Amino acid sequence: MSYILYYSPGAASMAVHWMLLELGVPFETRLVDIDAGAQHAPEYLRLNPTGRVPTLVIDGTPRGESTALLMLLAERHPESGLAPLPNATERPEWFETMIYLANALLPAMRSWFYAATDGEPADATAIKEFARRQIEASMERLDKTLGDGRPYLVGDRLSTADFLALMLMRWTRNMPRPATSWPNLARYVERLRATPSFLELNKREGLTEWQNASP
Amino acid sequence: MSYILYYSPGAASMAVHWMLLELGVPFETRLVDIDAGAQHAPEYLRLNPTGRVPTLVIDGTPRGESTALLMLLAERHPESGLAPLPNATERPEWFETMIYLANALLPAMRSWFYAATDGEPADATAIKEFARRQIEASMERLDKTLGDGRPYLVGDRLSTADFLALMLMRWTRNMPRPATSWPNLARYVERLRATPSFLELNKREGLTEWQNASP
Ligand SMILES: N[C@@H](CCC(=O)N[C@@H](CS)C(=O)NCC(=O)O)C(=O)O
Ligand SMILES: N[C@@H](CCC(=O)N[C@@H](CS)C(=O)NCC(=O)O)C(=O)O
Repeated sequence: MSYILYYSPGAASMAVHWMLLELGVPFETRLVDIDAGAQHAPEYLRLNPTGRVPTLVIDGTPRGESTALLMLLAERHPESGLAPLPNATERPEWFETMIYLANALLPAMRSWFYAATDGEPADATAIKEFARRQIEASMERLDKTLGDGRPYLVGDRLSTADFLALMLMRWTRNMPRPATSWPNLARYVERLRATPSFLELNKREGLTEWQNASP
Repeated sequence: MSYILYYSPGAASMAVHWMLLELGVPFETRLVDIDAGAQHAPEYLRLNPTGRVPTLVIDGTPRGESTALLMLLAERHPESGLAPLPNATERPEWFETMIYLANALLPAMRSWFYAATDGEPADATAIKEFARRQIEASMERLDKTLGDGRPYLVGDRLSTADFLALMLMRWTRNMPRPATSWPNLARYVERLRATPSFLELNKREGLTEWQNASP
């Protein structure tokens, strides 16, 4: 079993990087300098024709899509408990939550950050406003879900849904309304940011923003 | 095991409806009249707080997100072969394809059809243009994937990826560039539309457009 993660600090690779650390399995990393356009280099496009990070090379075969990689890693490492097992009561909720995040939130984030490059620069303001509404509606819904006081998104323990959700919430930190302005999300973020694997992730990716205040 | 599908003809429920027919399991259906706004009725919102179709009530518990329902049904009915089994060589590709469709294509379709209601009506033209680019780029990529002559999207047999992909391709039929204008997609669509379960699906949902020409 071998894993090589192509990543960029703080990008969509972050959730997968976090999961690999939490799993405690051996893996290598390769930095993709997306500011310098390294994701468009022919060698990278051979690994990932979408020209995006992450790519995870699994036993020699490159695969993409952060959400898919999280689901796949959970299946390859069932002993980790990072997803409810098939037939577990929480399994349908896990599928629904993963797809909800991948379908409703992740693409809206992409639109927010890439409005001017994925589309016409003149339309960027309209695209971003559309994306902002979708993002805030999703945050509102997640805040409501967490309103029952649950510590994790699905079931009573850490899962791939939390890796994905926290990454997405982190991306809102400089948006008009950051995730942490919703009370249940603030509580959730604060508690997950204290996870040892999340602290290690920030260290490895060289990230210094969006940390809990030192005690 | 009991299934009740809340659906609207031709909507995102279509892929799940198709899969239930292909599985050959017993299920009931309930029509949600989305033109009349039935998805916003309090009774429906209790089943699906997003106010969208599909909802599948599984053994009494309502669940949403078409892509998640397809993945879950495949897991509940492994004998159907409608997804590669865990540990199968095609499993990572199946995860990646399902998430790619859910993440890159389905939300862009939503933006295309709901630009004026999900966002500011004045911005609808910009939103639709942005969505059109994403949809055509995805079709281009799927056409390339199918360019090796494979009959199905993943592996050498029908899977949940085909249910999702065909539904999405059907939605392009009145767009500036319909999926069937790409040669490999046209071949793929023609062959899948001949599936007995797809013909039955059209009959049950009362759909008459986007059929193969009678022989
Ligand atoms: N659907 C993809 C999206 C990945 C994505 O958009 N990654 C961004 C960074 S967050 C990227 O690679 N951007 C570089 C570019 O698009 O040029 C996934 O979830 O893996
Ligand atoms: N992500 C959802 C999207 C479902 C969706 O957008 N359904 C549309 C029909 S295709 C709907 O219910 N529209 C009614 C509305 O939004 O009011 C899924 O895949 O199930």
